[in-house]
Amino acid sequence: MLHNSTKNRVVGVNIGVAFTSYAIVDVRGNIIAQEEFPTREHPSINEFVAYLSERLVMIMEANGGYETIRSVGVGVPSGNFINGTIEHAISLPWKGEIPLASMLRDRLGMAVAVGNNAHVRALGEHAFGSAHGMSDFIVITLGPGVGSCLFSNGKPHLGTEGFAGHVGHVCVKPGGRQCGCGARGCLEAYCAEKGIVETARKLMESSEKPSLMRNMDQLDPKLITDCCEQGDELAIQTYQVTGEILGVIMANYASIFNPQAIIFTGGISKAGHWLFEPARESFEENVFHNLRGKVMFLTSALTDLERSVLGASALAWEVQEYSLFK
Amino acid sequence: MLHNSTKNRVVGVNIGVAFTSYAIVDVRGNIIAQEEFPTREHPSINEFVAYLSERLVMIMEANGGYETIRSVGVGVPSGNFINGTIEHAISLPWKGEIPLASMLRDRLGMAVAVGNNAHVRALGEHAFGSAHGMSDFIVITLGPGVGSCLFSNGKPHLGTEGFAGHVGHVCVKPGGRQCGCGARGCLEAYCAEKGIVETARKLMESSEKPSLMRNMDQLDPKLITDCCEQGDELAIQTYQVTGEILGVIMANYASIFNPQAIIFTGGISKAGHWLFEPARESFEENVFHNLRGKVMFLTSALTDLERSVLGASALAWEVQEYSLFK
Repeated sequence: MLHNSTKNRVVGVNIGVAFTSYAIVDVRGNIIAQEEFPTREHPSINEFVAYLSERLVMIMEANGGYETIRSVGVGVPSGNFINGTIEHAISLPWKGEIPLASMLRDRLGMAVAVGNNAHVRALGEHAFGSAHGMSDFIVITLGPGVGSCLFSNGKPHLGTEGFAGHVGHVCVKPGGRQCGCGARGCLEAYCAEKGIVETARKLMESSEKPSLMRNMDQLDPKLITDCCEQGDELAIQTYQVTGEILGVIMANYASIFNPQAIIFTGGISKAGHWLFEPARESFEENVFHNLRGKVMFLTSALTDLERSVLGASALAWEVQEYSLFK
Repeated sequence: MLHNSTKNRVVGVNIGVAFTSYAIVDVRGNIIAQEEFPTREHPSINEFVAYLSERLVMIMEANGGYETIRSVGVGVPSGNFINGTIEHAISLPWKGEIPLASMLRDRLGMAVAVGNNAHVRALGEHAFGSAHGMSDFIVITLGPGVGSCLFSNGKPHLGTEGFAGHVGHVCVKPGGRQCGCGARGCLEAYCAEKGIVETARKLMESSEKPSLMRNMDQLDPKLITDCCEQGDELAIQTYQVTGEILGVIMANYASIFNPQAIIFTGGISKAGHWLFEPARESFEENVFHNLRGKVMFLTSALTDLERSVLGASALAWEVQEYSLFK
């Protein structure tokens, strides 16, 4: 006799620096129920896993029952799909190598997959967003860091140890700015949050021009974009410099990879044309000539809430169903 | 009734700038018969295809018969597997876009696959050489140009239009040396044959040091290596400068792909430790920290003859068998 699987829903979890959000999601990407709590209230990883598991069981029980859930997908900074760990995440309170997938699986009794932000976002865009139907594309996450995930032949390319996609640590300028990773001249030191603010500061220091940015105590990419909108010359120049660097590295990436599209997500992508016009220009100047004009630049087709949990839900489908009682 | 296929052999063809070589190869990579002829004796592509087809039929008939051959694989500069063409090859006598696969298929009545040098070499190393058993690796071809092919999840990554792998046109120095492709600062302008010779010349011009290279009319990478072997300081420095640039770009490539190994082929890879020691050093300095010490640098495990035809034979197995009479 053929069974119609009753486990037609999964849980997507997004562990962010500020909030951990989670949702029950069906096969079509409908969010059945969604909640969140502050990540930093749980400085011990054991306590965090215990609390998260409790909350997950509660939301399952309140929405159709534990037995309707097939598996759990978790997106987390420095998550490694291949061994199910968080590996030395700089932005999270928990240090070292954490076997998150097995810790959650032991408490929940169901399969758990872990992936890093870029991997999870790429799965989300492929399943439900801008990359639907594409087999070769790149997702770039521009935020506190710069991450990426590439799809090859319709599958995410994770690399031999699951560390693929670290475009943030590609060398832009040998001996250039100090990066958080210890090396110098990484893309992240120029095109992630802190790097962009540093570029703005350097432009202000080396110029006499008036700028709205000069009056701001705590500059960030969002405020710089606001200044651009008001015609602030140095703010516009900040994104021009950033875009030129981003464009060169995207061109290099595309020359190697020949993607159908590059999809930009993350807070900094909200700078819109201020960033992407100069990036596009420098991209076309530097990309392998056969690819000129052929690689689409896209932004995410998902809302912030969807992006945080739909990708993780897509990840949940990548692991085999698991049960102690099978 | 189950049939035991009689078509257990393929033909591998390598169209080189100087010679076109071809061989009958069995499933285990044994070369049954092999021949070659000068490529440049056939300046018309129609005439070349007619001559090659004739020779292929002759070698088949002399070695077990046409009916024992399953398919043909062709490695050629600027070959495109996806549409079976040669696309604007700079180093070959035939210009424009040439539908080589269908031209050969029409004459031979069997399936023909076309791939570029790097793609074909990667298949050869995967099937019979250094990359056997690996699922994520990069093959770099260092010769008149710099090409690459990457394997992702056990399959070659060709990109959305088959143009993936053009690491030779990754930008090393914005506004740097003029490259043959029209852009400036490409890797190829520094680490391919002409680029290395230019580096040697620049070092000689900017230095008073004696050098064996000063007495040579026509410098090439092989002669520079010979000078290194004799302790020539400027020759050694030439490969140091080249290796440093190569190491940075390999580090960037590895940070994005997390390959198990990078396999170097092509004439310049014969420079050996003169090139790869400085390359390795700069690689380790620049690669994403989690990958330090983890990415193998390998050279091809195949002989020159094997490399030229075994990869093409592996390519032949990638196409479906074809027959007008099926």
